[in-house]
Amino acid sequence: MTLNFALLGAGRIGKTHAKAISANPDARLAFVADAMPAAAQALANQYACAISTIDEIAADAGVDAVVICTPTNTHADLIEKFARAGKAIFCEKPIDLSVDRVRTCLEVVSQTGAKLMIGFNRRFDPHFQAVKAAIEAGKIGDVEMVQIISRDPGPPPLDYVKVSGGIFRDMTIHDFDMPRFLLGEEPTSVLATGSVLVDPEIGTAGDYDSASVILMTDSGRHCSISNSRRATYGYDQRIEVHGAKGAIAAENQRPISIEIATADGYTRPPLHDFFMTRYLDAYAAEIAAFVDVVNGKAEASPSGQDGLRSLVLAEAAARSVSEGVAVKV
Amino acid sequence: MTLNFALLGAGRIGKTHAKAISANPDARLAFVADAMPAAAQALANQYACAISTIDEIAADAGVDAVVICTPTNTHADLIEKFARAGKAIFCEKPIDLSVDRVRTCLEVVSQTGAKLMIGFNRRFDPHFQAVKAAIEAGKIGDVEMVQIISRDPGPPPLDYVKVSGGIFRDMTIHDFDMPRFLLGEEPTSVLATGSVLVDPEIGTAGDYDSASVILMTDSGRHCSISNSRRATYGYDQRIEVHGAKGAIAAENQRPISIEIATADGYTRPPLHDFFMTRYLDAYAAEIAAFVDVVNGKAEASPSGQDGLRSLVLAEAAARSVSEGVAVKV
Amino acid sequence: MTLNFALLGAGRIGKTHAKAISANPDARLAFVADAMPAAAQALANQYACAISTIDEIAADAGVDAVVICTPTNTHADLIEKFARAGKAIFCEKPIDLSVDRVRTCLEVVSQTGAKLMIGFNRRFDPHFQAVKAAIEAGKIGDVEMVQIISRDPGPPPLDYVKVSGGIFRDMTIHDFDMPRFLLGEEPTSVLATGSVLVDPEIGTAGDYDSASVILMTDSGRHCSISNSRRATYGYDQRIEVHGAKGAIAAENQRPISIEIATADGYTRPPLHDFFMTRYLDAYAAEIAAFVDVVNGKAEASPSGQDGLRSLVLAEAAARSVSEGVAVKV
Amino acid sequence: MTLNFALLGAGRIGKTHAKAISANPDARLAFVADAMPAAAQALANQYACAISTIDEIAADAGVDAVVICTPTNTHADLIEKFARAGKAIFCEKPIDLSVDRVRTCLEVVSQTGAKLMIGFNRRFDPHFQAVKAAIEAGKIGDVEMVQIISRDPGPPPLDYVKVSGGIFRDMTIHDFDMPRFLLGEEPTSVLATGSVLVDPEIGTAGDYDSASVILMTDSGRHCSISNSRRATYGYDQRIEVHGAKGAIAAENQRPISIEIATADGYTRPPLHDFFMTRYLDAYAAEIAAFVDVVNGKAEASPSGQDGLRSLVLAEAAARSVSEGVAVKV
Repeated sequence: MTLNFALLGAGRIGKTHAKAISANPDARLAFVADAMPAAAQALANQYACAISTIDEIAADAGVDAVVICTPTNTHADLIEKFARAGKAIFCEKPIDLSVDRVRTCLEVVSQTGAKLMIGFNRRFDPHFQAVKAAIEAGKIGDVEMVQIISRDPGPPPLDYVKVSGGIFRDMTIHDFDMPRFLLGEEPTSVLATGSVLVDPEIGTAGDYDSASVILMTDSGRHCSISNSRRATYGYDQRIEVHGAKGAIAAENQRPISIEIATADGYTRPPLHDFFMTRYLDAYAAEIAAFVDVVNGKAEASPSGQDGLRSLVLAEAAARSVSEGVAVKV
Repeated sequence: MTLNFALLGAGRIGKTHAKAISANPDARLAFVADAMPAAAQALANQYACAISTIDEIAADAGVDAVVICTPTNTHADLIEKFARAGKAIFCEKPIDLSVDRVRTCLEVVSQTGAKLMIGFNRRFDPHFQAVKAAIEAGKIGDVEMVQIISRDPGPPPLDYVKVSGGIFRDMTIHDFDMPRFLLGEEPTSVLATGSVLVDPEIGTAGDYDSASVILMTDSGRHCSISNSRRATYGYDQRIEVHGAKGAIAAENQRPISIEIATADGYTRPPLHDFFMTRYLDAYAAEIAAFVDVVNGKAEASPSGQDGLRSLVLAEAAARSVSEGVAVKV
Repeated sequence: MTLNFALLGAGRIGKTHAKAISANPDARLAFVADAMPAAAQALANQYACAISTIDEIAADAGVDAVVICTPTNTHADLIEKFARAGKAIFCEKPIDLSVDRVRTCLEVVSQTGAKLMIGFNRRFDPHFQAVKAAIEAGKIGDVEMVQIISRDPGPPPLDYVKVSGGIFRDMTIHDFDMPRFLLGEEPTSVLATGSVLVDPEIGTAGDYDSASVILMTDSGRHCSISNSRRATYGYDQRIEVHGAKGAIAAENQRPISIEIATADGYTRPPLHDFFMTRYLDAYAAEIAAFVDVVNGKAEASPSGQDGLRSLVLAEAAARSVSEGVAVKV
Repeated sequence: MTLNFALLGAGRIGKTHAKAISANPDARLAFVADAMPAAAQALANQYACAISTIDEIAADAGVDAVVICTPTNTHADLIEKFARAGKAIFCEKPIDLSVDRVRTCLEVVSQTGAKLMIGFNRRFDPHFQAVKAAIEAGKIGDVEMVQIISRDPGPPPLDYVKVSGGIFRDMTIHDFDMPRFLLGEEPTSVLATGSVLVDPEIGTAGDYDSASVILMTDSGRHCSISNSRRATYGYDQRIEVHGAKGAIAAENQRPISIEIATADGYTRPPLHDFFMTRYLDAYAAEIAAFVDVVNGKAEASPSGQDGLRSLVLAEAAARSVSEGVAVKV
C-alpha cells in the first residue's frame, strides 16, 4: 500500500525530501504546506501534489506521515501536534535549541506512542553505512577512536547564524550524532575549543566559526571533531574509526573523479560543494528508512532520544569552551 | 512541451532507458512494445505507460520519438521503419553487425531526414565528459595517445556470444567509439590480437575473450585498447589521454569508497559490478541529450555515421587478428 | 673541511645517526662511546671509527661535534659537559623529563654559547618539509587548523614505559613540536584526554596508551592530535593543515606501493612498521642540517628552546587530563 | 670476503653503480677506468679507488668483477675480453645493437663459463619485485595480460638518438624484458606502431618518439606497451598485470607525496623526473644481486640470454612497424 505523505516546509531541505518521497515506490507526496504560497505552489507543480495547511493535514485521516522541514523554532510544536494527530513524524534536526523543550516534546511523543524519526541524514550515507557495517562485522576489532573532519564550503548567512543556536547546536550536532552511531558507547565527557577565524562578524554575533572537540566515553574511547565554516576545496566530510585490529576511513566524495597530470603535478577536481549533492543518496535512503518505520517494519532510528542526546552534547561543548573545563554529561 | 516516447524492447537495457525517460522532465514514456507480453506488462505497470505494437507506434501521430532496445538483428529494419514514419530515433549500438547493412540503413535515414542517435552511452559519462572538456580546454595540449582498459566482470551467456558478432563488434565497439571521441582525428590503421583465456567455449564458438588493439591516425596518434571478458574486481573502465603538455586519467568508479586498514594492508571495496550501475548517470544524460535532439536543440551525436565508423574499426580488428597484418580503414 | 663527530650511545637511534654521519660528505664518525662495550665495538667495526669514552671525547680538541643518543636521564648532564667542552651538540629529544632541569641545562648552554640542536627528526621529513614550504609559499593562506594523527605500530616494552615520563613526554612530544613548526604561532592552551585501551599494564604503570589533544593559540588557531600506542597497519604518521585558502595533507608512507585487485577489493600493503625506516630520509637530512650548524652556516633549529617548549606542552597535557581543565601555558 | 670491483666507464650510469658498489657491505670499488681522465679522477676522488686501464684490470688477478658502463658499441668486445680474463661481468643493456653480434658474444661467454649479468635494473625495483612476488604467490591466478606504460620526461639528445639503435632497442628494450619477467611465458608475436609526435628531428633521424606495442605468447597472453619520449609530469613508469583471479598494479613513484587542496582542486607533486632517482633502490638491489652471483650464491639473472631475447623483440617491433605485419619471433 502506498503511503500518503505531507510535507511541511517547501524550502531547500523540503525540496530534497519531496524528491526522495516522489521517487520512493512505497510513498506518495499528497500534500505540501508552506507559509509562503509561492514555495508551496512550486512543489505542487513539480510533484503534482495538493497544497494544504497544517491544520487540514493534521485532520486528514488519509495522511499517514508528515515530514517537518519548517524553521527550527516550530519543530517541537509541530511534533506535538502531529503526535497527537496520530501521524508518523519525520522531523529535521534539531527538535529544538533548548534541551528542556526537547524533553517536554519527547514526553508528548512518548505518551501518544507516536513514531518519530529525526533527520540525521549522514547515518544513511552509503559510505558511512559501510563503515558501520565493517565495524559490526568485526573488521577492526573493538572501536577505540573516531576522527571526524567536517567543514562547510562557506559560512551560512549571518542572519541565520544569529538564530542557529551556535555552531555546536547547528553544525557540530551532526558530528555529535556520528560517534554515538559508531563508538558503540555513549560519550560522557566533552572538551571543546572554539574560535573565530573565518569571519569576525560571526564572532560579533556571539558564535564561533572554527571548533575542535574531543568526546570521551566511560571506557576511554575518544572522538575528535574538527569543524570549520569554510573549506575552499568543497564540502569536507571525512570519518575515520581506529580499532584494536585496524582502522576504517570514509573518504571525501567528489562529483568528478578525473586526474590531470602536468608539469605542475597531478590535480583532481574539488569535492562536492553542497550538502545536498554530497548526501543525495543519503536523503533517499533516509526517506526509505522512514517509510519502513511508518509501515511498522522498523523502529524509528535516529529517534527523538538520539536528537536529544546530540543536543545535550552540543550544550556541553558550548559550556566547555566558555568555562575551560571538561564537561560531564 | 513534453515529448511522447515509445520504447521498443523491455529487456535489461530497455528498463534502463524507461527509467531515464520517466525521470526526464521533458519526456514521457507513452508506450512500450515487446514480443514478450510479460516484459511489456512489467514496464507498463511500473511507469504507467500503455502497451502497444511496433506498427501502432509507427502509425501514431502522437509519438515523437522511439527508443530501440530490441535484439541487434532487428535494429536496421526498425530504424528504417521509424525513419519513414517520421519519428526521431534512438537506437542501441550496433545498428547491425554487417557494415553493408548499416550503410543501406543510413541511406534511408539520410533520405528521410530522420533524426538518428546511437547509444554509445560512455560518451555521456560525467567523468569521460570531463576528460573531453579538459582536452578541449587545452589542459594537456595536443592529444597523442589514448589508453583504454575495458573489462567486463564476467562473460555473457554463450548463446549470446554466438550471435554477438564477436568481441570486437560487441564489446570493443564501445572502445572504438571512445578514441574517435577523444583523439580529435579518425583512426585509419588497426592492429589487433585476440585470444581465449577466460572460457574455452568462447573459443569453440569462434570468438575471443581477451583482446588487445592498437589504433593509429594519419598524423601518428595512437590508441591502445585492452579488453577482457573477466575481471574479478568489477567492471573495469579506465581511460587515459596523453598529450604534449600532460595527461588526463578517468579513474574507475566504485559504489562504496571506504578503506579498511589492517595488518594485511589497506583495502577498498571492488568496483561496480554491472554496467548499468556504473553508467547510471551516463544513461540519464544520454536520454537528456536525445531529448535535445528531438526538440531540435542539438544535432544527433553520436550519429549513425559514428555507429558505422566504430563497426568498420571492429571489422578491421577482426581481420587484423586473423591475417596478422595492420589493416587500413 | 670534514668535521669529526663523536657518537655517544650506540643503541638503536645511535646506529641510525652513525649511518647518516658516515654517509654525509662533510662529516666523519671519529669516535663512538657506549657503556656496553659490545655495542660500541659493533659500530666501530662497521664504520671504522675508534672506541672512546665520554671524558676522552670531551678532552679531545680534534672532536668538533657530539651526537647524544644515551638514555634520557643522562642528556642534560652530557649537554652541560660538552657545552663547557666547547663542542657542538646534537641531542636526542627530550633534554630531560623535568622542565626545571631543562631550564638549568639551557642556562649552561646559553652561558657557554654552545651550539645545541635537538632531535625532532620529523621536521626534516621531506614530505613535512614540503608542507611547511607550501604554507610559506602562501598556497593555503593563513593557517587555521593542524590535524596530526600519530600512532605507533605497537607499544614499547613496559620497562621503558615506566621510565618514559608518560605518553605526552615520550610520544606526543613529537606532535607538540610539529604544530609549533607549522602553525606559525605558539600554542598557549592545552586540552587533553588520555585512556588505556591497548594494554591494561600500561595503565597499571600510571600511563595512557591512547590520547587526544587540542592545542590553541592566542589568535584561535587549533591543533588536534590523536595518539595510539597501537596501529596494526603500520606506523601511522599523518599531518594536515587547513588554511583560509586551502589545505595540505602529508600522506602516510609505505615501503611498497603496489595494489592488488581481487573479488575482495583493492589492497595496498601496510605502512612502514618502524620509525627508522619511515624517517630514514629525515634522519639523513637532520644530520646534514646539524653539519651546517657546526659549520656556522645555519642556526641550530630545532633549538634547546624548542625542546623546552614541547616539554612544557607535554606537562600541560598531563595536567589537563588529570584535572579536567584547559591548561594555559 | 669483500669482492674487488672494477668500474669501466665513469659516466652517468657508472656513477650510479659506483655508489651502489661502495655502499654494498660485500663489495669494494677498487678500480675505475674511463677514456676521459677527468671522469675517472672524479670517481676516484669520491670513492677512494684507483684509476686504471682496461688492460690492467683484465690482467689484475685481484679483480673479482667488472661493471661495464661504457658506450654500447664497446659492450660486446669488453664482455668477451673479461670473460676470457675470468672475471665476473655485469654489463649495462644492451649487449649490442646487432642480434648477430650478441650471439657471437654469448658464444664466448658460454665457452669461457664466465658469469654475465645484464643491467635490466627494473627487475630489481622493490615495487615490481612485489608484483612478481604476488604473482608467484598466486594472488591473481594465471597471468593473462600485462600493461606497461613507460614514458621519459623528455627525449635524449639528438646525437644520442642517432646512435641509439632506435626507440625499440634503446627505450622499449626495458619494456620487452618486463613481460618476459612477469608473463611466465615467452612472447612469440610482436605488433608495433611508431610515430613522431614529440620532435620532428627524431623523425628526420629515422627514429620514432612514440610507440605502441602488443606482444603475444603462444598460449594467448598479451602485453601492451605504451612509450613516449615526453611526459611533462615526470618519469612515468607503470606496470599492471591482469590475471584470472585479479590484477596487480605498480603505481608511479613521486619524491614528495603531499596533496594540496584549494578551490582549483587537489594537487599532488609531479613524479620523479629522472630514472636514477626513480630507480635508486633498484640499482642498489641490482648490484647486491650481482654480488651474490660473483659469490656463487645465485645464477646470473637477467642473463646474457635475457639480453638477447629483448633485443630480438626490439628488432621484431621495428620490422612490424615498417612492414605492417605481426612478426613472429
